[in-house]
Amino acid sequence: MSYPAPYRAYAQPEFFALEWLAEGVLGVAFNRPPVNAFHVAKWTELHRIFDHIRGDGDVRAVVLYGNGRCFTAGLDLNDPEFHALLDGSDPARIALRVRAFIERFQASLTAIETCERPVIGVAHSHSIGLAVDILSAADVRYAAQDARFSIREAAIGLAADIGTLQRFPKVVASDSAARELAYTARFFDAAEAKDIGFVSRVFDSRDAALQGAVATAKQIAQLSPVAVTGTKQALVYSRDHSVAEGLQFMQYLNSALLQTGDLAAAMAAAMRKTKPQFAKL
Amino acid sequence: MSYPAPYRAYAQPEFFALEWLAEGVLGVAFNRPPVNAFHVAKWTELHRIFDHIRGDGDVRAVVLYGNGRCFTAGLDLNDPEFHALLDGSDPARIALRVRAFIERFQASLTAIETCERPVIGVAHSHSIGLAVDILSAADVRYAAQDARFSIREAAIGLAADIGTLQRFPKVVASDSAARELAYTARFFDAAEAKDIGFVSRVFDSRDAALQGAVATAKQIAQLSPVAVTGTKQALVYSRDHSVAEGLQFMQYLNSALLQTGDLAAAMAAAMRKTKPQFAKL
Amino acid sequence: MSYPAPYRAYAQPEFFALEWLAEGVLGVAFNRPPVNAFHVAKWTELHRIFDHIRGDGDVRAVVLYGNGRCFTAGLDLNDPEFHALLDGSDPARIALRVRAFIERFQASLTAIETCERPVIGVAHSHSIGLAVDILSAADVRYAAQDARFSIREAAIGLAADIGTLQRFPKVVASDSAARELAYTARFFDAAEAKDIGFVSRVFDSRDAALQGAVATAKQIAQLSPVAVTGTKQALVYSRDHSVAEGLQFMQYLNSALLQTGDLAAAMAAAMRKTKPQFAKL
Amino acid sequence: MSYPAPYRAYAQPEFFALEWLAEGVLGVAFNRPPVNAFHVAKWTELHRIFDHIRGDGDVRAVVLYGNGRCFTAGLDLNDPEFHALLDGSDPARIALRVRAFIERFQASLTAIETCERPVIGVAHSHSIGLAVDILSAADVRYAAQDARFSIREAAIGLAADIGTLQRFPKVVASDSAARELAYTARFFDAAEAKDIGFVSRVFDSRDAALQGAVATAKQIAQLSPVAVTGTKQALVYSRDHSVAEGLQFMQYLNSALLQTGDLAAAMAAAMRKTKPQFAKL
Amino acid sequence: MSYPAPYRAYAQPEFFALEWLAEGVLGVAFNRPPVNAFHVAKWTELHRIFDHIRGDGDVRAVVLYGNGRCFTAGLDLNDPEFHALLDGSDPARIALRVRAFIERFQASLTAIETCERPVIGVAHSHSIGLAVDILSAADVRYAAQDARFSIREAAIGLAADIGTLQRFPKVVASDSAARELAYTARFFDAAEAKDIGFVSRVFDSRDAALQGAVATAKQIAQLSPVAVTGTKQALVYSRDHSVAEGLQFMQYLNSALLQTGDLAAAMAAAMRKTKPQFAKL
Amino acid sequence: MSYPAPYRAYAQPEFFALEWLAEGVLGVAFNRPPVNAFHVAKWTELHRIFDHIRGDGDVRAVVLYGNGRCFTAGLDLNDPEFHALLDGSDPARIALRVRAFIERFQASLTAIETCERPVIGVAHSHSIGLAVDILSAADVRYAAQDARFSIREAAIGLAADIGTLQRFPKVVASDSAARELAYTARFFDAAEAKDIGFVSRVFDSRDAALQGAVATAKQIAQLSPVAVTGTKQALVYSRDHSVAEGLQFMQYLNSALLQTGDLAAAMAAAMRKTKPQFAKL
Repeated sequence: MSYPAPYRAYAQPEFFALEWLAEGVLGVAFNRPPVNAFHVAKWTELHRIFDHIRGDGDVRAVVLYGNGRCFTAGLDLNDPEFHALLDGSDPARIALRVRAFIERFQASLTAIETCERPVIGVAHSHSIGLAVDILSAADVRYAAQDARFSIREAAIGLAADIGTLQRFPKVVASDSAARELAYTARFFDAAEAKDIGFVSRVFDSRDAALQGAVATAKQIAQLSPVAVTGTKQALVYSRDHSVAEGLQFMQYLNSALLQTGDLAAAMAAAMRKTKPQFAKL
Repeated sequence: MSYPAPYRAYAQPEFFALEWLAEGVLGVAFNRPPVNAFHVAKWTELHRIFDHIRGDGDVRAVVLYGNGRCFTAGLDLNDPEFHALLDGSDPARIALRVRAFIERFQASLTAIETCERPVIGVAHSHSIGLAVDILSAADVRYAAQDARFSIREAAIGLAADIGTLQRFPKVVASDSAARELAYTARFFDAAEAKDIGFVSRVFDSRDAALQGAVATAKQIAQLSPVAVTGTKQALVYSRDHSVAEGLQFMQYLNSALLQTGDLAAAMAAAMRKTKPQFAKL
Repeated sequence: MSYPAPYRAYAQPEFFALEWLAEGVLGVAFNRPPVNAFHVAKWTELHRIFDHIRGDGDVRAVVLYGNGRCFTAGLDLNDPEFHALLDGSDPARIALRVRAFIERFQASLTAIETCERPVIGVAHSHSIGLAVDILSAADVRYAAQDARFSIREAAIGLAADIGTLQRFPKVVASDSAARELAYTARFFDAAEAKDIGFVSRVFDSRDAALQGAVATAKQIAQLSPVAVTGTKQALVYSRDHSVAEGLQFMQYLNSALLQTGDLAAAMAAAMRKTKPQFAKL
Repeated sequence: MSYPAPYRAYAQPEFFALEWLAEGVLGVAFNRPPVNAFHVAKWTELHRIFDHIRGDGDVRAVVLYGNGRCFTAGLDLNDPEFHALLDGSDPARIALRVRAFIERFQASLTAIETCERPVIGVAHSHSIGLAVDILSAADVRYAAQDARFSIREAAIGLAADIGTLQRFPKVVASDSAARELAYTARFFDAAEAKDIGFVSRVFDSRDAALQGAVATAKQIAQLSPVAVTGTKQALVYSRDHSVAEGLQFMQYLNSALLQTGDLAAAMAAAMRKTKPQFAKL
Repeated sequence: MSYPAPYRAYAQPEFFALEWLAEGVLGVAFNRPPVNAFHVAKWTELHRIFDHIRGDGDVRAVVLYGNGRCFTAGLDLNDPEFHALLDGSDPARIALRVRAFIERFQASLTAIETCERPVIGVAHSHSIGLAVDILSAADVRYAAQDARFSIREAAIGLAADIGTLQRFPKVVASDSAARELAYTARFFDAAEAKDIGFVSRVFDSRDAALQGAVATAKQIAQLSPVAVTGTKQALVYSRDHSVAEGLQFMQYLNSALLQTGDLAAAMAAAMRKTKPQFAKL
Repeated sequence: MSYPAPYRAYAQPEFFALEWLAEGVLGVAFNRPPVNAFHVAKWTELHRIFDHIRGDGDVRAVVLYGNGRCFTAGLDLNDPEFHALLDGSDPARIALRVRAFIERFQASLTAIETCERPVIGVAHSHSIGLAVDILSAADVRYAAQDARFSIREAAIGLAADIGTLQRFPKVVASDSAARELAYTARFFDAAEAKDIGFVSRVFDSRDAALQGAVATAKQIAQLSPVAVTGTKQALVYSRDHSVAEGLQFMQYLNSALLQTGDLAAAMAAAMRKTKPQFAKL
């Protein structure tokens, strides 16, 4: 597929490539050869990118994918910042430092959720460890047929801690399968990922999956951005609250959002039988 | 199918038809031609009907369906009460009014949940917008093959706010699919609804689906009404609470319900190898 | 299959058989002919067994299954302790006693969850009533083809109260199907159980299912026990909390667990391209 | 003191007297001689009155007090509707009915909280049983010197169930004292009520207390009604949620309320050094 | 004061003295000279005692106090079980063991809360460290004038972890003072404890405080035990839940408890103007 | 008093003065004449300062006070960034922008809470509006006799939204008084602030209050920093969670912190009867 244009609103980051994939559709690609491994500098950048997107009214949907051989092979275990973390002799003082580190690390992935634009993740080939944390924080997940996933942490002696254990069981259909995958660290392919509901569509190749994602994103980009962002805020809130609390949240959210001009624009267009045009956020 | 008798315990409402579909099985049908659209008067009536059912020990299960062309085409956007809502010039005062309005509107659908009888929804043909809010509040969902669903709101400039965003993701199996449907407002048919777990059975036609629902409802109506209503109360509570809190709830609920005579009746019938008869609530 | 050895670390219980099924894999078998029914003495023993496992570092995974004709036919309704519970004339005083009884009963099943080792349940033939409560508290569920499940309680006049209504809807994919099964008390077979996600694999026979479970358990037993137990603690916590709370939990859990020597062992083995050996807990 | 005018916006109720005590200040007086006891008809009326107030923009603050000998002597134990509640022979069916009854009863007192106007309660003489439930649901509590309170329920064989046990410990300063009063059912006077923080001011007489309450209410009635109602909504929400959730609630509440014209009115008046005039809700 | 009789229903424990202080009033005295320090065996016994009380219908109220020189000087830091806890070289494995230990330790104090009888704590002289944890778990707190309290933990290098930080700030009136005491570890006397609401009454001596506690306990013992235990269950539940959840809890609790004969007994006694007699639990 | 030294670890900010007030005690002073009003640049700086403190092991306690005429007169209503916020014509789009703005503003005050060092606030003279939000986020509050507080917002047409309504009622003793102050916007002095528990000590002058705060801070600075920071983390967590959840949090927090060398240091010092020395974090 052809990428319409680089994304000029933001200085090009070092480990990501940002490009407009369609009007209102921003592509965020992992871009750190050979396997898009994550070190501290990269996930700090990820945080900054999604914080930036949050304030950019031109972006209406995001597609998140990997350039090169695979989506991502996960954590870069050679990162010296990671090793320095465990230096010292008092387990309590190390623990306080580790906690603060994990908190910042988690925040960089949670930024995908708080950016308030739908994010479509597209997995291909190796998508392991951190890949599952990241995809679980996306809104919609598509996969190429060659995608291979693994919740890697039990195999390397640490519990998965940047979001997989919190989000993965809430986005898949089978609790029994989710736990088996978390306890055994075994690989699962795109078909099994589709079967348990982790991804909702499987495509023949990375490029086909990317095209599918852009098609969905374009559909989103044509709807009311007020309604779409309100929908994401409500979905994220409701996942973590009771139905009664979710309903109360909607009352307050919509007491303002229902006053949008988009509603009148949509109704006028419906009468004229044309497609409504909605202003950016 | 033949409807045994009108439901005499309650003055016939204006926009609904109430009929006994079997002993203990009450049918509640949307009955506002041509497309069962919802205006304020109709959802107020819905609220009153389910509040009434809650206090009627003769009703042991409810089947909720649409008369005429479709289940429901959703909100009646021509309702003047809806337009009056946005009158005024101070956004804060409008917001306070809008919030109170949404609260009442939500309460009318939540009445389906608080009526404490199993409610089986049966969708056919257009089942869009508010239809999804209503079906998500039902206990069990069946569909005719011609059913077409859509979470309509993003397309008309307002976030879905009467319960879909709170309940829909909790009743479907694929979070990724649920979000895609909410963000894109695209139509999905009975087969996809079955695939993502939104409906649990698909039938050839509206009448077949209705028959299927009545068969299930009859089975429920023969069991202990104390146990069935306790089950619904526990399921609704547990959906919104931790397992530990759900278990504590059962302790208090059952400290009274286990004292029911239904338990003895069931055990005596089991010994006699007959079917137990349970008194109404 | 052959069972390597009896489990010597614990006095053989009366209604269960405990055996090592592989290194680190403990088998816990219901062993009360003819149908493994549960009376007060048996569930008290269940509680004690899982409390014991919690403190035994040699156990890395548990397989829970039934000896004899079936997994379990559920509650032994002839247990006099159960009948004595309802003696008396003041409904309030009976209620206080019933509540305390249910609390203890629930605690014995919750011990499966708090033992902090992955538990794989294997159902065959009759697996009704209490069987569903117990399986819902396991981590992973496999079934033999002949398994027949039923949420029995509505049929005998009491709401399901030892954990099914709290856990079953959180482990199956279709809320609509879960509710239908709870309200109608009808039987469902292994295929339907697989379809709704209650079990994740179906095998030809009980023995094949048991072998499958042991194979999975062996895989778990070779991974870092620190990571595996951390994973279970996080999964149980996250099921019952918001994502934000789950993430905070991981910070504190991992502030200590990341200091484990297992991580270094895993990384060293990876460099040497050997399999890491992890010390027991 | 002189009461400016009866409250015409609402048909005079049977067991209450409604009067304007000042501009924007509505007086709601218990008016059922001899001791303002509560039967079902009276608390149903209470519910209706506060629901009505919620929708009346002219009301900016409410003063709640008792006409005649005392604030209220509590529940009217001779009410036949109360006795009918316990008729029947199946403890489970009675329990289901009792629960629904308590729910409605609680809702009538919670209406004080959900009316979204500050409510100042003024106690004099006997203020026992239900009086404490009602006062605990008010925002501000004043007492005449002769007020005598008692959490009566333990003395008459039923746990306090219409809100005292939920709200009283959250509005008093000493948990130890609150529990002592609830367990012993002993009387406590205005001075002790002030000491434990249950009332914030004590006056020489009922009339003085009423004047004090009106003075406070008048002060409230001159401020921005948007800000005052927002403040009550936030206080009620925050009492029951964590700080983090309370802060998020404010974001959504104020995203609309900050757009009010009252803010500009207040700032313009500040520049002119005049008193701002705010439109009614 | 004279102690009516030893408590025969339970084998005399080793580190506590149990005596009837009045009909229905059980005294539980710390009895480990010289300063009632707590080692593992002692808190295990505490757990067992309160578990036993929970099932003993003769006990209607509990008074908890110290024999000898002081209430308790807190943790016995020489207990070898405490030191063994930190043996080992893998900080993660030690952490897992420490956590399980703290969980059991906390459970022994929480038993005071779950015994469902009002517990009145009486502090005299040194009441430090663990004393504050224990008193915070009691319902009502009285102190002798010579009582000296301290939240000791920051001074000895570990955060207070058996309940003080969770309960203390919820039972005192001044958050600012509570935090100052927790951060500085300084001593505070009975007068300051009264001022911040930690104790509700101060007496001249230990014996006077004990007499005061017994007088209050006797008053409780004469009321309906169904209502009193219901009150404690509701207070504990409501402390930790929102008002809305607390109200729902009351519906279920009272759906059974309102059916008690105590209510009729109380009303009959009121008509006869006699004191009601209530049966034990 | 004399300030030992400027704080060199951090570039001097523009609107604050940072100085060492004693070893381990950092003074953070508002320093924007004439009345320390807050504009966007200032609260952004506040955020950065407390984020920095969090990572600086030399800081063991913080004293927060105002230089010049008063603590702070609150929001600088002339800040153009604040006015720009409400520009535009679509109330929904403005609302989305306002919400994001409030979120950032709240975060800058919440940084006081998340810096994990005890913070002692010292109020003098005008301490209004935002002053109450800030002081409520501090751990301990002292006041000079001339301090005058006001929850200003209802008077200027907006609900208090940066933390007062969430935290103030949780730190004061009288709910009735807290609500009166929030609804009436009236001023209250140091004596009333002490009476309702908002401040825990009142001093003759600002300098005396500052000296008192430093004395308390020095006491904290000599204790184990591991225990002190653990205490703050536990207090903040417990304020917002149930006792059961707070206890579980302590298990995980202390599973690492109990392994600190500070515990051994404290016990060794106790044996030698010397003062323990604790390493910095």
